[in-house]
Amino acid sequence: MYTDLPLAELQSLRSSAVAPADLEDFWRTTIEESRALGSAPVVRRVDSGLTAIDVFDVTFSGFGGQPIRAWLRVPAGVEGPLPTVVQYVGYGGGRGAAADELQLAAAGFAHLHMDTRGQGSGWSAGETPDVAPDTGAQAPGVMTRGIESPQTYYYRRLMTDAVLAVDAAQQLEQVDGDRIAVKGGSQGGALAIAASAFAPAVKAALVRVPFLADFPRAITITDAYPFREITDWLRIHRDRADAALATLAYFDSSSLALHAHVPGDFTVGLMDVITPPSTVYAAYNAWAGEKDITVWSYNGHEGGGLDDLPRELAFLRNHLA
Amino acid sequence: MYTDLPLAELQSLRSSAVAPADLEDFWRTTIEESRALGSAPVVRRVDSGLTAIDVFDVTFSGFGGQPIRAWLRVPAGVEGPLPTVVQYVGYGGGRGAAADELQLAAAGFAHLHMDTRGQGSGWSAGETPDVAPDTGAQAPGVMTRGIESPQTYYYRRLMTDAVLAVDAAQQLEQVDGDRIAVKGGSQGGALAIAASAFAPAVKAALVRVPFLADFPRAITITDAYPFREITDWLRIHRDRADAALATLAYFDSSSLALHAHVPGDFTVGLMDVITPPSTVYAAYNAWAGEKDITVWSYNGHEGGGLDDLPRELAFLRNHLA
Amino acid sequence: MYTDLPLAELQSLRSSAVAPADLEDFWRTTIEESRALGSAPVVRRVDSGLTAIDVFDVTFSGFGGQPIRAWLRVPAGVEGPLPTVVQYVGYGGGRGAAADELQLAAAGFAHLHMDTRGQGSGWSAGETPDVAPDTGAQAPGVMTRGIESPQTYYYRRLMTDAVLAVDAAQQLEQVDGDRIAVKGGSQGGALAIAASAFAPAVKAALVRVPFLADFPRAITITDAYPFREITDWLRIHRDRADAALATLAYFDSSSLALHAHVPGDFTVGLMDVITPPSTVYAAYNAWAGEKDITVWSYNGHEGGGLDDLPRELAFLRNHLA
Amino acid sequence: MYTDLPLAELQSLRSSAVAPADLEDFWRTTIEESRALGSAPVVRRVDSGLTAIDVFDVTFSGFGGQPIRAWLRVPAGVEGPLPTVVQYVGYGGGRGAAADELQLAAAGFAHLHMDTRGQGSGWSAGETPDVAPDTGAQAPGVMTRGIESPQTYYYRRLMTDAVLAVDAAQQLEQVDGDRIAVKGGSQGGALAIAASAFAPAVKAALVRVPFLADFPRAITITDAYPFREITDWLRIHRDRADAALATLAYFDSSSLALHAHVPGDFTVGLMDVITPPSTVYAAYNAWAGEKDITVWSYNGHEGGGLDDLPRELAFLRNHLA
Amino acid sequence: MYTDLPLAELQSLRSSAVAPADLEDFWRTTIEESRALGSAPVVRRVDSGLTAIDVFDVTFSGFGGQPIRAWLRVPAGVEGPLPTVVQYVGYGGGRGAAADELQLAAAGFAHLHMDTRGQGSGWSAGETPDVAPDTGAQAPGVMTRGIESPQTYYYRRLMTDAVLAVDAAQQLEQVDGDRIAVKGGSQGGALAIAASAFAPAVKAALVRVPFLADFPRAITITDAYPFREITDWLRIHRDRADAALATLAYFDSSSLALHAHVPGDFTVGLMDVITPPSTVYAAYNAWAGEKDITVWSYNGHEGGGLDDLPRELAFLRNHLA
Amino acid sequence: MYTDLPLAELQSLRSSAVAPADLEDFWRTTIEESRALGSAPVVRRVDSGLTAIDVFDVTFSGFGGQPIRAWLRVPAGVEGPLPTVVQYVGYGGGRGAAADELQLAAAGFAHLHMDTRGQGSGWSAGETPDVAPDTGAQAPGVMTRGIESPQTYYYRRLMTDAVLAVDAAQQLEQVDGDRIAVKGGSQGGALAIAASAFAPAVKAALVRVPFLADFPRAITITDAYPFREITDWLRIHRDRADAALATLAYFDSSSLALHAHVPGDFTVGLMDVITPPSTVYAAYNAWAGEKDITVWSYNGHEGGGLDDLPRELAFLRNHLA
Repeated sequence: MYTDLPLAELQSLRSSAVAPADLEDFWRTTIEESRALGSAPVVRRVDSGLTAIDVFDVTFSGFGGQPIRAWLRVPAGVEGPLPTVVQYVGYGGGRGAAADELQLAAAGFAHLHMDTRGQGSGWSAGETPDVAPDTGAQAPGVMTRGIESPQTYYYRRLMTDAVLAVDAAQQLEQVDGDRIAVKGGSQGGALAIAASAFAPAVKAALVRVPFLADFPRAITITDAYPFREITDWLRIHRDRADAALATLAYFDSSSLALHAHVPGDFTVGLMDVITPPSTVYAAYNAWAGEKDITVWSYNGHEGGGLDDLPRELAFLRNHLA
Repeated sequence: MYTDLPLAELQSLRSSAVAPADLEDFWRTTIEESRALGSAPVVRRVDSGLTAIDVFDVTFSGFGGQPIRAWLRVPAGVEGPLPTVVQYVGYGGGRGAAADELQLAAAGFAHLHMDTRGQGSGWSAGETPDVAPDTGAQAPGVMTRGIESPQTYYYRRLMTDAVLAVDAAQQLEQVDGDRIAVKGGSQGGALAIAASAFAPAVKAALVRVPFLADFPRAITITDAYPFREITDWLRIHRDRADAALATLAYFDSSSLALHAHVPGDFTVGLMDVITPPSTVYAAYNAWAGEKDITVWSYNGHEGGGLDDLPRELAFLRNHLA
Repeated sequence: MYTDLPLAELQSLRSSAVAPADLEDFWRTTIEESRALGSAPVVRRVDSGLTAIDVFDVTFSGFGGQPIRAWLRVPAGVEGPLPTVVQYVGYGGGRGAAADELQLAAAGFAHLHMDTRGQGSGWSAGETPDVAPDTGAQAPGVMTRGIESPQTYYYRRLMTDAVLAVDAAQQLEQVDGDRIAVKGGSQGGALAIAASAFAPAVKAALVRVPFLADFPRAITITDAYPFREITDWLRIHRDRADAALATLAYFDSSSLALHAHVPGDFTVGLMDVITPPSTVYAAYNAWAGEKDITVWSYNGHEGGGLDDLPRELAFLRNHLA
Repeated sequence: MYTDLPLAELQSLRSSAVAPADLEDFWRTTIEESRALGSAPVVRRVDSGLTAIDVFDVTFSGFGGQPIRAWLRVPAGVEGPLPTVVQYVGYGGGRGAAADELQLAAAGFAHLHMDTRGQGSGWSAGETPDVAPDTGAQAPGVMTRGIESPQTYYYRRLMTDAVLAVDAAQQLEQVDGDRIAVKGGSQGGALAIAASAFAPAVKAALVRVPFLADFPRAITITDAYPFREITDWLRIHRDRADAALATLAYFDSSSLALHAHVPGDFTVGLMDVITPPSTVYAAYNAWAGEKDITVWSYNGHEGGGLDDLPRELAFLRNHLA
Repeated sequence: MYTDLPLAELQSLRSSAVAPADLEDFWRTTIEESRALGSAPVVRRVDSGLTAIDVFDVTFSGFGGQPIRAWLRVPAGVEGPLPTVVQYVGYGGGRGAAADELQLAAAGFAHLHMDTRGQGSGWSAGETPDVAPDTGAQAPGVMTRGIESPQTYYYRRLMTDAVLAVDAAQQLEQVDGDRIAVKGGSQGGALAIAASAFAPAVKAALVRVPFLADFPRAITITDAYPFREITDWLRIHRDRADAALATLAYFDSSSLALHAHVPGDFTVGLMDVITPPSTVYAAYNAWAGEKDITVWSYNGHEGGGLDDLPRELAFLRNHLA
Repeated sequence: MYTDLPLAELQSLRSSAVAPADLEDFWRTTIEESRALGSAPVVRRVDSGLTAIDVFDVTFSGFGGQPIRAWLRVPAGVEGPLPTVVQYVGYGGGRGAAADELQLAAAGFAHLHMDTRGQGSGWSAGETPDVAPDTGAQAPGVMTRGIESPQTYYYRRLMTDAVLAVDAAQQLEQVDGDRIAVKGGSQGGALAIAASAFAPAVKAALVRVPFLADFPRAITITDAYPFREITDWLRIHRDRADAALATLAYFDSSSLALHAHVPGDFTVGLMDVITPPSTVYAAYNAWAGEKDITVWSYNGHEGGGLDDLPRELAFLRNHLA
């Protein structure tokens, strides 16, 4: 069932989000401050039971220099450094099991799979805490954690982690720092956009059904979580809608995409109510680089699933050659 | 519909929770550490628009000396110091509007209505952040925030706030420090139990459908939130059930009630699936002081609502005389 | 999530309901007939346990002279007669507990809180029966009770009660008959509109998310109860839609509002599916008096809750000065 | 799925309902008073479009002499008087369309299909109003209409209608007054029990998944409507549970069945959550006459549907021979 | 609630489905092949317990000569041959009980009630298997059984059954082969359209809320089953949408209706989400014969129910005179 | 939430299913007949895009010699023949994407992943049709397809496929025929049990939350699909429960497990409502071989997920050494 705009309108839609004038400054400053607090990643081999793929437990410095976990998976016995994909996780999940999501390593890539701070308890496990000094009253979840100011908002920390994961990747011996792509679906897609915008080492991006785009529109066209967390909060904090929306403007995927100049490969599910197609197109249409989008006409938020893999591998081999 | 044990079995039920040997030490230490960091409460009169009741915005020192908000409501033009009720809020809510819940002040009591750190966005607004250095991966909500250790668990901070709210009350000019009772429903009931156990100034407690009791049983007999947050988390963090349950043992209302020696007036709804009656009775049966319980045979978690008020006022007038 | 028209269209919307030519006659006759059967209100002080507010149990003559219950709450020890608010209750509820909703009395007003005939069992208790000689086959609830004729329709009786509650208020010693406002939310808002239209003593109205407006549109744009009761009935009584809609035309808030010439203060929740915003605006845009509306952009049927109170008190103090 | 007792326990279960000492007096008086107010039934042939079955619109005197509608269906061109079945309708429905439920007439019986006062809007249409002077605050539906006294309770009126429908049948020329059975499912089954208990002309009863049995147990073992209406009401009117249960005791199918001495053919669905099997057995086990029950092991409240028909026809032909 | 186009747009809507150029060839060939494999129907009288209506169990040759069951109901003792209605059943059901749906026979018609292959387990029982050599991976239900080719699609078999049921009717002694109409609701309506298009003996059609119309639109405007089965399948078989839609084009009621030249009497429920009104109108507007439609403004998929009967009987008597 | 028996009772539970005396004959005959119709598997390398794992599309002869699809995944560049795992899929799914579920091949095993006939449309794609001559009226899904006889029941075909998949594996050059284990979850677990019982080449079995065990109990203790399909069918085909249960007795995992003599490693989720723990234990307790079970106390039907992998690999390496 379609509940959003017709495809033709989606294709020419512009986001209703307005990027703050100081958006780029905000992010440059934020990232630089955290980068200054960082140290070299720590890498520990784990016994995953696999023989064809080696898995490492990586701890790198994220926002505020805080330790962020990730898995590094590489094909066993392959000479590096390798072309690399840094992957981000969808809402509620964590980096999951060491032996999960083996496709990229099995296809010959180094695969750095970043954990998500303070999440990792909804559908796959995480290990990384969210450390924050003062985040205010919030609805369950992280969508409204610290929403009253861009300085305290949860995604300031998580998006910085995403950018610094690329820094960390460059420091790993298995990684060819000149051949790094990012990938993610939903929240992971939003993080891939953020990293594409602010991590210069990123050469290409696989952005699947990205989240966090066009907040002002999104919260009025869907009742599905997690966008709904925001309206749950606004419903109670009636007098703070302006402040909350002003905060969200710094984190809107459709504004961040304006700063992404690398090739981007997107997907959208036309029956998606979690990241409605108009919000995905808000980000896609804003993307500043070369781009393409796969339209899954009868899919929801699951998008293309593994049916996207052949195209993804071709895209990666093309852009990380 | 009844989904729990028959009333006769409830009345003789003992909690399945086992109190840790160092439970009292844990709490004494925790409270003393925070008390040492505290400062005098700050009281600011607010213009609520009311003429018969005066409302003040109070900020007091809670866990770690962190500022906690509360409303103080007193009858206008009444000579103090007054008998006082410190009230705690149910899960998801905050202290709400200045002009809400006027009954206690309108009945002649000073009414200190404590905000709940990091909540206050679900059904009534709050202002108080939860400040925590490291709380790990968590499910949405606060039930699993920091659950891997008693030191980091959310309720260590919130229960300490509840105890220190009584300290704060004693320092207010409108309050007669020798005539303080506590009150709360659901999570607020659990906090009232904690304060009764560890705040010596408390003289009596109104405990309505208390939450957080008999965790080991609760999480296996109900699918309702917020207890369900714990099983959501355990479902993913399969290998950490022992640690999580060991943490919860320090915060189980049925273990804390063993330390409560003041008169306690409880309520229970026999059709309650949020705090199932057997969990309420686990706390009630453990209560160390004089006690009574009102059984609402056909009610759920709403319990007696305002139909409890006449009995509450009589209880308060009796015990704060 | 928004499911109704954009705000700009709401602001210029006209109700699709057509007022019957004899609407005013119908109501004048109905009210006069009932007024002729009335007797003086009976007032009995109750022991609410409160000290700052006095509560009285009032029984006055409503439709057909039938006894209707209400609470009268006044600030204790204040010299009357007082500016007064007559309040009506939302669908399913009754006047509730004596000690509920203390804000208006605590703010210095006499507060006459009318019970709702035959309801008072859904979320707050009532005491008043609905007495009706012949009301036909009906769906559960009161929305289709007697719907086949304006003479037998439930709301003929309830709206008459609402108008006569103002008569009764004028006869109470605590009330200044020249300073009476009405207030209500949802069904209570519809009753406030009816009273404003047909009770000349009303000086101002607080109308929150009013119900019963623009029936022809409402029943085709929402599936939510209680509007849905009407389509449930029409689904079975397929051949009586014309009669039912002809009946409803006499009770449509958007037609009654044409007869309301006093200042009106409205609220609307743009995410309201129970009284969709276009039905609220149908009534607001029809309101014949001075008016203003507070738009809660991210709220549903709860509207502004107690966040409306400061504005309400200012409005009342202005118009009942 | 089974949610009630095992079959072996059902078979020996006794109702938890206690019949009031004056139950029989209450009903004898009630019925006599109404009978005294009655007049002869009015019969009007309707054009149903059928040729093999004749349909008549019957109006007879029910409770308080009030006019109650019914359909009379008889095989066309068959010499009467005929063996006859008086049928009662399930909750929410009415007598429906003239050409509905043709089986009994097509099988050679006169079929008097009684309308249900004040219902007839939920799944089949009715025409008969419920006239009642004072029925108090009630939850939507009829289960709590007038529940505070046996005198005012809705089912006093409806059960009297059911008894007097048998009187009316005896006065119809198409009916052989010595060969009358009653039939009904759910609420209709409860009415069939009432008629069997108090209408001496009844010779046999088809009681399908009967409702209204063992109220004290029913309201604690199911959350399904319409039993749930009672707990909805009790939830609000907390202080009136004793009065409500005392009223219900006069209308409990399991108490009325003690007065039914004719052959009874019952059905039960073991997966029924609307009339849980233990409530059906409470009535069946109490039935004073010869009896049998068909157990549908994998059915819910739909019971045997038309698969019961062959057995029903054999039972009727046997007992109305 | 309305979720489809306004009535004025419905009335001029054209289906978005495009009929394949060889649609008629496909069907002529399919039907002829099956007809060639057929044999005379077998008729066996059953003891239904009815006296006014005779019921026969008919087995006739359907698709591929496979045996298809049906009930034949005729008024008892009436001289034939009779005007006849061949009726088809809605999704999930079967021909049901012998004594069900007696109206047409009771009104003087022979009534051939065809079973539905492989269904008959959802709300009424069937007996007829679906025999198919190779139908591929499918979602639960029959909507995607064999969907990858018109040759293997389930509805090729069922629609052929529907056409051949008319052949069979003509061979029954109780039937006047020159006076045959077809009737059906939902899936049964689609089958009535197919039979009207390809069975020349059909003289008129009663088409209630027909299903299977305008697939390309239907699957994007409703989430309700059974249309939803198709999107469930497409969601997984992402790469086969073109093949599936190409298959469905041969079975689209709105394309088949272009070949129906007999008088057609339709119904539509404007609140129908199972066969949304625009899909019903897609078929109705395409109907090539004389036609009329009854609009039930406040009904869903139940449409007019037995309220349609008077009009149906008049239509049948007019066109089968 | 626990809705089944306590763990101690589970551990000593015996299935209520009674194995037919000729169960083993039935299966030996069925398998031999199909084996006689088989031919050598066809293996075709596919381009999965992976470099560390080679994937082959295998077509082997299943029930009746019908072609069944499977994926064969092996570590690239590893000398065979390899220890091998034949895996079966859960209800509704198919073998999925070529590059899915890479863990076993990445751990050094040959991994034959069998498709499921006629499913493969619910959560992962399949390609294999279910070919069946006559399967009767059925509810949506496959649980009641052909349920009226063991000869026609769907699982006769699918379980035979499962057994013959082991035959096929033995014929593959990559497979060491003396080192074959089977694995599956839910329906896949039931197939692993069947293969363990009747395929002598199986050396060990990984059985996760197995389905199809203790049908007589299962259908009365859960309302969850797919067990629910059976009660849906029985609800309509009321007169065929005996036949259906007699059929199911040949396919009950708890009866098949009596014939499984190899080491079995089970899992169970104590909060599983799809395969309730008592049904899992019914199979586990019946298992004739060496066995162990992992109890996931707070999990539902997802059981241990990838957290089972380390134990699985150890078990496989131990038993396929």
